[in-house]
Amino acid sequence: MHLIDAKDLNKTQIETLFELAENYKAQPWQTEVLKHKIVSLLFFENSTRTRCSFEIAAKRLGAAVLNLDLAASSMQKDESLLDTIQTLEAMDVDAFVVRHKEEDTCRYIVDNLKTKASVLNARSGTQTHPSQALLDAFTIYERKPDFENLSIAIVGDIRHSRVAHSNIHFLKVLGVKDLRLVGPEIFLPKQDLDCKTYTDFGSGIKDADVVMVLRIQKERMADTDVPDAGSYFKNYGLTPEKLKLAKPDAIVMHPGPMNRGVEISTKVADGSQSIILQQVQNGVFMRQALLDWLVK
Amino acid sequence: MHLIDAKDLNKTQIETLFELAENYKAQPWQTEVLKHKIVSLLFFENSTRTRCSFEIAAKRLGAAVLNLDLAASSMQKDESLLDTIQTLEAMDVDAFVVRHKEEDTCRYIVDNLKTKASVLNARSGTQTHPSQALLDAFTIYERKPDFENLSIAIVGDIRHSRVAHSNIHFLKVLGVKDLRLVGPEIFLPKQDLDCKTYTDFGSGIKDADVVMVLRIQKERMADTDVPDAGSYFKNYGLTPEKLKLAKPDAIVMHPGPMNRGVEISTKVADGSQSIILQQVQNGVFMRQALLDWLVK
Amino acid sequence: MHLIDAKDLNKTQIETLFELAENYKAQPWQTEVLKHKIVSLLFFENSTRTRCSFEIAAKRLGAAVLNLDLAASSMQKDESLLDTIQTLEAMDVDAFVVRHKEEDTCRYIVDNLKTKASVLNARSGTQTHPSQALLDAFTIYERKPDFENLSIAIVGDIRHSRVAHSNIHFLKVLGVKDLRLVGPEIFLPKQDLDCKTYTDFGSGIKDADVVMVLRIQKERMADTDVPDAGSYFKNYGLTPEKLKLAKPDAIVMHPGPMNRGVEISTKVADGSQSIILQQVQNGVFMRQALLDWLVK
Repeated sequence: MHLIDAKDLNKTQIETLFELAENYKAQPWQTEVLKHKIVSLLFFENSTRTRCSFEIAAKRLGAAVLNLDLAASSMQKDESLLDTIQTLEAMDVDAFVVRHKEEDTCRYIVDNLKTKASVLNARSGTQTHPSQALLDAFTIYERKPDFENLSIAIVGDIRHSRVAHSNIHFLKVLGVKDLRLVGPEIFLPKQDLDCKTYTDFGSGIKDADVVMVLRIQKERMADTDVPDAGSYFKNYGLTPEKLKLAKPDAIVMHPGPMNRGVEISTKVADGSQSIILQQVQNGVFMRQALLDWLVK
Repeated sequence: MHLIDAKDLNKTQIETLFELAENYKAQPWQTEVLKHKIVSLLFFENSTRTRCSFEIAAKRLGAAVLNLDLAASSMQKDESLLDTIQTLEAMDVDAFVVRHKEEDTCRYIVDNLKTKASVLNARSGTQTHPSQALLDAFTIYERKPDFENLSIAIVGDIRHSRVAHSNIHFLKVLGVKDLRLVGPEIFLPKQDLDCKTYTDFGSGIKDADVVMVLRIQKERMADTDVPDAGSYFKNYGLTPEKLKLAKPDAIVMHPGPMNRGVEISTKVADGSQSIILQQVQNGVFMRQALLDWLVK
Repeated sequence: MHLIDAKDLNKTQIETLFELAENYKAQPWQTEVLKHKIVSLLFFENSTRTRCSFEIAAKRLGAAVLNLDLAASSMQKDESLLDTIQTLEAMDVDAFVVRHKEEDTCRYIVDNLKTKASVLNARSGTQTHPSQALLDAFTIYERKPDFENLSIAIVGDIRHSRVAHSNIHFLKVLGVKDLRLVGPEIFLPKQDLDCKTYTDFGSGIKDADVVMVLRIQKERMADTDVPDAGSYFKNYGLTPEKLKLAKPDAIVMHPGPMNRGVEISTKVADGSQSIILQQVQNGVFMRQALLDWLVK
């Protein structure tokens, strides 16, 4: 049982994970669940945020956690990666939580496993970050469970976002009909994702129930045709004024870490409609749900 | 409940911590105390010694420990530090043990907390290192509890010491009347700390009950007017001969790590009057006391 | 009780460790054994493989594990190493698992210990790697326990191997009479190890029951007179064809990590006669046996 890509999960499975996450939210510490299991965290790229979330999740379930900080290593998707995986498998490691810059690393690992160890994608490459998208969906579900009647706007660099593609998949599977992608032309997806697209911010978030703001990679600002931080904020940054265009009870989300003053103003980030820290909190519960479901 | 500065603690509180430390010295492993609590170690500067002390303390109390080795990170006291703290708070982390080069980082974190998490200063900046000073006071208390009648000499670079200012505070609160600061003029404090100061080593430690030797930062030796290691040792280094000027049963302390042959000779460091390793041992018990008192 | 050098162990002790390893193989998680003990991993050189093996072993026995990643530190076998050891001893650390580039670091630590803490050599210098050699012997013992009648060929750079010297010692103590060292002249040991030596690969492994292949340090290939990877593989690389010269039920071993296509072909490494991953698995059980025997 692995979690490689958001597309591997159907509606029933997503709902099962929601139930498990609710269970862990009600009672976070259940140390018998993964007692005598070993969860290894293979982070080929730094990520304090996601690594801590998985580490806390595994410890709350009673697993032994093995931290392999491989960011500094020169290990690539070649024999030495395979050698590391097979070595850890031979040591009876039960789960590999993997962050790697290349798209298909998790699939490659799964294809070469010799045991029944689980592989969990903690973001590989630029297209998929399923555990983040699951916690986002769960956080919406807690507040606005009637997915079919929600208007959800995803704002920002959808084209290069590590989480947006996974979000779009889950939200569609859960029944969202009015799903809008909002951003400058150069940030909108090249392929047809069967969503409405908007370059005009006001039209994009008008009467939305949920506004999901994406992180803008500042380094991308230097590219030709990409707006600078100031003009991006002016046109697409979420401010209290612009947020008034959405429904009065609209919720604001962000996968973090935020660039305050670029894609979101501090007032909105810390304001009453923001559920950004609840996303972080739910992240641990959703990862507990995933570890329970996949590894137990 | 936080521990930011030595000055935040009054005599009753210090005595409570002494009692707790004695309790943990009698029975070090009490894993129910912080069961299902998460203690995060945020070390923006390397410190094997202090990090291990807190890590062992937390594990003996049954806490889950999250190691965030941030020394290599470029994170500063700005939005990204705040973002990290708020993220960990949202993950229900119960305590932040913080080492940072800037003076007021812990206060800054406390001012921005949104939950009831505790902040423990594991040394920030150059002025305060309260957990070290507490373990020092506790180690004196075990051997010579009659603080009012003790003569205590602190020898070395008091001006730049990370621990001396905290030591002076605690010892005065505990009733020490004869507290002496000993060192070359350039190492004596600029402000009036209400202590006797001595540039003559012999007068400074004469008949002392306790000699607390401070670490000399070798890199400071290069500054103008600062003595080199050899001449410092000659004038202020604690040797068996010079130690004879103190009381026959005087105890010798050092916060570590020592520069043997600079501020202290190996014979004294490893001699029968040295209680330097007992300080290290008590350090874990005192940190257990602090975690118990602040986080439980 | 320490494990510094393979030569410190006699036959009875080795057999005791085999029994303990079998016990842990039958029941890996026995968390009462080292409950309330602290095992510190002092790795002055990187080793994901050996570090993880010891970490899992310690956690299965219920110990608290302290990871000191010192590879990046400039700490040498001098006062600061000693200071670190004494500090950790004072914190009641029960075991030091040490990897260091210098030969006699473990002995140096043992000579300076002040408590009853144990020191376990996780490879120091170029001559000794006793825990690896013990797991190798145990893995042979499981399959072919009649050591006196075994023919065992060790193939590769015996001269510079970190594990071969320890292997030779254990196998001789266990009664192996036909022990062969196989490799180009420049890789054969300079001193007389009381083994037959072969520069001809075919004669060396003829009718062997066990073929132990050593890792070739690619960086050594650049030395004068040392064969390049291609010609080494041609003459000494273990291929399915060459393996036919050994007994039909011969087992193939390698301490890892492997250079596939240099000292061993992928077909042999992953083939039915390879017990390389069983070595890794047994490594954890043998390290549990060592920690039990030395630290409990």
